[in-house]
Amino acid sequence: MKTDDLYNIIRDVPDFPKPGILFKDITPLLKSPQHFSYCLDVLQQILSDYKFDYIAGIESRGFVFAAPLADRLNTGFVPIRKPGKLPWKSYQESYDLEYGSNTLEIHRDALEKGSRVVVMDDLLATGGTALAANKLVEKCDGTVVLDLFVIGLSFLNGTKVLEDYPTKTILNF
Amino acid sequence: MKTDDLYNIIRDVPDFPKPGILFKDITPLLKSPQHFSYCLDVLQQILSDYKFDYIAGIESRGFVFAAPLADRLNTGFVPIRKPGKLPWKSYQESYDLEYGSNTLEIHRDALEKGSRVVVMDDLLATGGTALAANKLVEKCDGTVVLDLFVIGLSFLNGTKVLEDYPTKTILNF
Repeated sequence: MKTDDLYNIIRDVPDFPKPGILFKDITPLLKSPQHFSYCLDVLQQILSDYKFDYIAGIESRGFVFAAPLADRLNTGFVPIRKPGKLPWKSYQESYDLEYGSNTLEIHRDALEKGSRVVVMDDLLATGGTALAANKLVEKCDGTVVLDLFVIGLSFLNGTKVLEDYPTKTILNF
Repeated sequence: MKTDDLYNIIRDVPDFPKPGILFKDITPLLKSPQHFSYCLDVLQQILSDYKFDYIAGIESRGFVFAAPLADRLNTGFVPIRKPGKLPWKSYQESYDLEYGSNTLEIHRDALEKGSRVVVMDDLLATGGTALAANKLVEKCDGTVVLDLFVIGLSFLNGTKVLEDYPTKTILNF
């Protein structure tokens, strides 16, 4: 198994979620134990260069990678969720989309002051979602040591939005 | 670590998501690597009695357990998602709630005919969500070998709704 095999198993779905967007479908990767396991191996290898206390996953595809990595590395898992999903006291952070805006939330006791956190999502597009997640970590007095993604859409310049943070992607389009 | 430690780390949040509901908050369990890892050990032990090809996780808290179990057991992971999230051709299944209804979706190519599937969610309440997930597996010509949950709210009689399927829960309230 090599990185090319991961590229080859991503399915392009045209015009999703709206006309003109070519969506990168990771479900074939998740369905194949060999590919999913290898993808996690590559992510784990990247993480071996960082010291951290928690992996925060962004709902919901971020959960699919963050939770097994937390399990493999014996690290706590912290969910960053869509509004109204977390039951306890939360911090909110809103960010702009092309039309309208979205909000993410984190529990106020999700981290201890000074915690070092990896923020994980499946895909880096414009970077707005990850930037909001980073700000939530900081509202909890944590430090983002890395924004980690499986896929990067480099033509959307998400790394520019995240320029104050270390960022890694493994598959780049 | 023992099962009592898992009970003790679940946080009760009163009146969420609406007045009169006592919500079982699993975020303290996920945050503690010892507890999360032990919880996955217990689930993995249960799964050692079953033969299956895929673990299907119900969005989104089901993903947090299904994905690491798929990784541990070298099994494919299949997401069962809320409407409009899956990019490719999907089957839908709707189910009634106290007020209104919800819908879940699965990709039409999520499983091969005859696949044996474990359906995983964090919590068994009325059983409506899991039953819809089971029907989606069956629409893909798969067989549900087990509905697996971390928490069961036995006073809601979800196992009655799921009586045609094997069901396991590890923490029962």
